[in-house]
Amino acid sequence: MPNGFSPALLVLRDPLESDAGRSTSVNSTTGKSTSANSASADSVSGFIAVDPDSPVVSALDLGVTRGDGIFETITVVNGMPQALDAHLHRFARSAAMLDLPAPQPETWKKGVFAAVDSRPTVDEAFAKLVYTRGIEGSGIPTGWIYLQQSPDFTTERTEGISVVLLDRGYASSVQRTSPWLLQGAKTLSYAINKAAAREAQRRGADDVIFVSSDGYLLEGPTATIVLKLDDTFVTPRTESGILPGTTQQSIFEIAAVNGYGTAYEMLTPADLRRAESAWLVSSVRNAAPIREIDGEARPIDAGLTEAINAGLAARTI
Amino acid sequence: MPNGFSPALLVLRDPLESDAGRSTSVNSTTGKSTSANSASADSVSGFIAVDPDSPVVSALDLGVTRGDGIFETITVVNGMPQALDAHLHRFARSAAMLDLPAPQPETWKKGVFAAVDSRPTVDEAFAKLVYTRGIEGSGIPTGWIYLQQSPDFTTERTEGISVVLLDRGYASSVQRTSPWLLQGAKTLSYAINKAAAREAQRRGADDVIFVSSDGYLLEGPTATIVLKLDDTFVTPRTESGILPGTTQQSIFEIAAVNGYGTAYEMLTPADLRRAESAWLVSSVRNAAPIREIDGEARPIDAGLTEAINAGLAARTI
Repeated sequence: MPNGFSPALLVLRDPLESDAGRSTSVNSTTGKSTSANSASADSVSGFIAVDPDSPVVSALDLGVTRGDGIFETITVVNGMPQALDAHLHRFARSAAMLDLPAPQPETWKKGVFAAVDSRPTVDEAFAKLVYTRGIEGSGIPTGWIYLQQSPDFTTERTEGISVVLLDRGYASSVQRTSPWLLQGAKTLSYAINKAAAREAQRRGADDVIFVSSDGYLLEGPTATIVLKLDDTFVTPRTESGILPGTTQQSIFEIAAVNGYGTAYEMLTPADLRRAESAWLVSSVRNAAPIREIDGEARPIDAGLTEAINAGLAARTI
Repeated sequence: MPNGFSPALLVLRDPLESDAGRSTSVNSTTGKSTSANSASADSVSGFIAVDPDSPVVSALDLGVTRGDGIFETITVVNGMPQALDAHLHRFARSAAMLDLPAPQPETWKKGVFAAVDSRPTVDEAFAKLVYTRGIEGSGIPTGWIYLQQSPDFTTERTEGISVVLLDRGYASSVQRTSPWLLQGAKTLSYAINKAAAREAQRRGADDVIFVSSDGYLLEGPTATIVLKLDDTFVTPRTESGILPGTTQQSIFEIAAVNGYGTAYEMLTPADLRRAESAWLVSSVRNAAPIREIDGEARPIDAGLTEAINAGLAARTI
């Protein structure tokens, strides 16, 4: 990373504020709050800038004692937070699934811009939004935004990644039958996602694709699967208990503009193996082409991947 | 709670220490380290006492960003931590399942005694041990012990609790087939356990018993199931992807001393309904008799429950 970029940490000042009665002007095209554009991390943004190296979470915070909270990770390309509204929409959806107080989208949006504006503009940074149930018994959530320069994912984007298929243990119907299992919510309880990544490493692979107990492709631990099948971009149906992918949604928009079909389907490992191209897509790494599945090589389309990642990087909303 | 008891928070000082070369004398009967007996929360105990109201966790700690860590909750009756070795054994087992650096049992044992010794002796307190993967990229775990007086569970112990059965989504074979799902590890990723408890509240019940997708009783979100079936105390087999219960183990010892049989079985909801008695057992609430299942009343054995809880409270190891 170049010199000069130090991480920023902004802590939510008033987690139970109401949106009622506020009249901030928001540009509907850019999504940028006009007041936030010139604000640093101060009371205008609803966040307070703190030293990223100082502890900010109580040992009694349910975020750490129970993984009881939610997050979003948003890529910031040349100072532009991408798919911000889509991320904030999913953030609110996750909060509702966990019965958390609704996060105020305008406050978080201003916070993201305040964090970005407080640091030099770099090619790629990411903003991580965290929102927990707070200190047990308090009823007051804890929230923060952490901004850091992104790692260099050039290799993953151009040379591809190897994946292993791992059983997620759940049937593809679980989100409908057992909503308390929180499938489809982006929670802080990601120990399984980390354990699956370690299992991939043990098997000599870079990443994981989870498969449902009834044999359907689900998602990666931190990414969405996108296949190109018969010239159509296809991704698993979110009803199968997976996160709706913000990057996948952008890719579908890019694909549609370029004349491709798009579809949400119940997909199987056989579909993955026969696909013309396959990617794991996520907010910071973007589209990483899959070059190997369970040790078996498969082709990648370097040109198409480059076009997709260029399209993602060019997003202005 | 009586006046005079304020919580204690002790932070692990040297998370990567090795046990090699140390020669602390430990009393094999009480499990008490002789050096810890007289030590307050200082360098002798390996922990540092901090203000429980001050934040101690970084926003970058994988404990909070990924629920990537483990915990144990140990009841302390009249100043005596109960089943401490069993808890520390399970703590080490959970750490191994998560590929965390092995926690040093003697250090944690000293820490628990240091926390207890730093506060007035009360009827019932609890010590919560937390151990996370630490700040991302650092390779250094974060650990702490939080000691607080226990809530009053007299009502739950004497009048019983109502439970609902909820599908856990996993088959009972999942621990063997998919160890990356971490079933049987006591992780910080407990958002599902909290969501299940909220679902129970929505249904007007106090607690939850999880059932596997293939129809076997598993465990509560924070408790083990114990049934009395044909004068034998029975609990689900841990191979079904559940935590080995420290309180359940103590109850089995008490039951055996009193002439009852004990057994680990694959149990079904039908077994729960036909049991002479049924309890959810855990370290702080102890044995809570189940008086209602999915809205259907069932008998509780107040005398036997009282005897069990008296036996638990009398533990000296």
